[in-house]
Amino acid sequence: MKQISSTQNSYIKDLLKLQDKSRERKKKGLFIIEGQREISLAIKGNYQIDTMLFVPEMFSKENLNQIQQHTSQCIEITKEVYQKLAYRDTTEGVIAVVKSKKFSLDTVNFNTSTPLILVLEGIEKPGNIGAILRTADAANVDAVFIADPKSDLFNPNIIRSSVGCVFTNQIAVGSSEEMIDFLQAKNINIYSATLQNSNQYHKNDYTQATALVVGTEATGITQIWRDKATQNINIPMQGEIDSMNVSVAAAILTFEAKRQRGF
Amino acid sequence: MKQISSTQNSYIKDLLKLQDKSRERKKKGLFIIEGQREISLAIKGNYQIDTMLFVPEMFSKENLNQIQQHTSQCIEITKEVYQKLAYRDTTEGVIAVVKSKKFSLDTVNFNTSTPLILVLEGIEKPGNIGAILRTADAANVDAVFIADPKSDLFNPNIIRSSVGCVFTNQIAVGSSEEMIDFLQAKNINIYSATLQNSNQYHKNDYTQATALVVGTEATGITQIWRDKATQNINIPMQGEIDSMNVSVAAAILTFEAKRQRGF
Repeated sequence: MKQISSTQNSYIKDLLKLQDKSRERKKKGLFIIEGQREISLAIKGNYQIDTMLFVPEMFSKENLNQIQQHTSQCIEITKEVYQKLAYRDTTEGVIAVVKSKKFSLDTVNFNTSTPLILVLEGIEKPGNIGAILRTADAANVDAVFIADPKSDLFNPNIIRSSVGCVFTNQIAVGSSEEMIDFLQAKNINIYSATLQNSNQYHKNDYTQATALVVGTEATGITQIWRDKATQNINIPMQGEIDSMNVSVAAAILTFEAKRQRGF
Repeated sequence: MKQISSTQNSYIKDLLKLQDKSRERKKKGLFIIEGQREISLAIKGNYQIDTMLFVPEMFSKENLNQIQQHTSQCIEITKEVYQKLAYRDTTEGVIAVVKSKKFSLDTVNFNTSTPLILVLEGIEKPGNIGAILRTADAANVDAVFIADPKSDLFNPNIIRSSVGCVFTNQIAVGSSEEMIDFLQAKNINIYSATLQNSNQYHKNDYTQATALVVGTEATGITQIWRDKATQNINIPMQGEIDSMNVSVAAAILTFEAKRQRGF
């Protein structure tokens, strides 16, 4: 088995770039996953593992055997190299180089005639996107649409904060316009979260085909989502502050829809 | 007006300790707030400002006049001193030294015979506590009870992540035992979030006096809250992962109660 013990190794340097730079990930069609659980979720989600790097003294034989089935190349690395690559303070000692997927609207399909879709528009913070993907997994929504994202989804912070749910959800990325076309063509109701001209969220029927749209905390959703909404909706704010964390808002809306559907 | 331009000034050093150390905050009965909005919410919440420190070139006269009404002592500081003290990357240029409050169960009172209370047990991450306080403000719950906290509530990370909602909520801190005694004495129903022996959260009636109890993501709530619950409740997990962020769970439960109450 191949071994790498130098942090100056050129392959390791390439991997560091993959961690850091969206552009590099796009160019190479690869990204990095850290942690056993996240790697397992990616394998389950039919991601292809390009290379697995592991620290022998940190990683059990059993786990290694399991993971070797899913990759053509395994590389032993030293603790020092691992610490250089690892984004987190974990002691799991395993990192995977994984082939990217395209999150295309064209490949989205539903097992139901009344899908529940969560749409995120222009959300910047990786931590919020990750948190929402985690909630979307828990609710088992039919798809998460990410409109006009500011970052690619293989950002290490998104992977981490989603606890791997970036691999378990059906995701599509695209422009707001094409998403609205898609939703309208399929007669999916659009409920856009906004304070303007909206009714209280719980007064609508989400048992039909439904897309719930949330935007950034700072500026909310853009005009097109308001204009094209079946109904604009709001979550009543009854305290001193006037805004909610977007991942909290997404969870409240999603679980209200799930409640109406009887889970 | 008093001026401080040296980061080595002994008062500034004392303030740094207040920022960093829960023990210092307890000993002195003081803590630090950064940012105009958070300071305003504290004033609104009847906190007493001990001292206000501001950078003249960063802070408008109008804001200064407004804030001077609420404090006996104002100190001009240099940008350098401010940057030493400031916990965040803001350019607001104002810091307040504020008198702590005790969050005693004895002083809790309700304006209603059917209060809605959120109980957090043993939650460690300041970011989660802050996020929950923000949600609790939005929902205007009647009180937030923090059982067996791992940190004091004047931790700068809690203040920041709550966006000042640590000052807007009615909060009590204490042991799980005394909180359960309190709730039982007042005939407040206890709904404890846990997977064991629980029903789905939306199947219960939260229109009566209600306490919703959530615990840590790692270990959940302790046995006493399960044993003393009117009903244990769960949020159905229908995806690949088996846990939810505690601030998301708290929001889903709180807003289901609010929905049942018609907001």
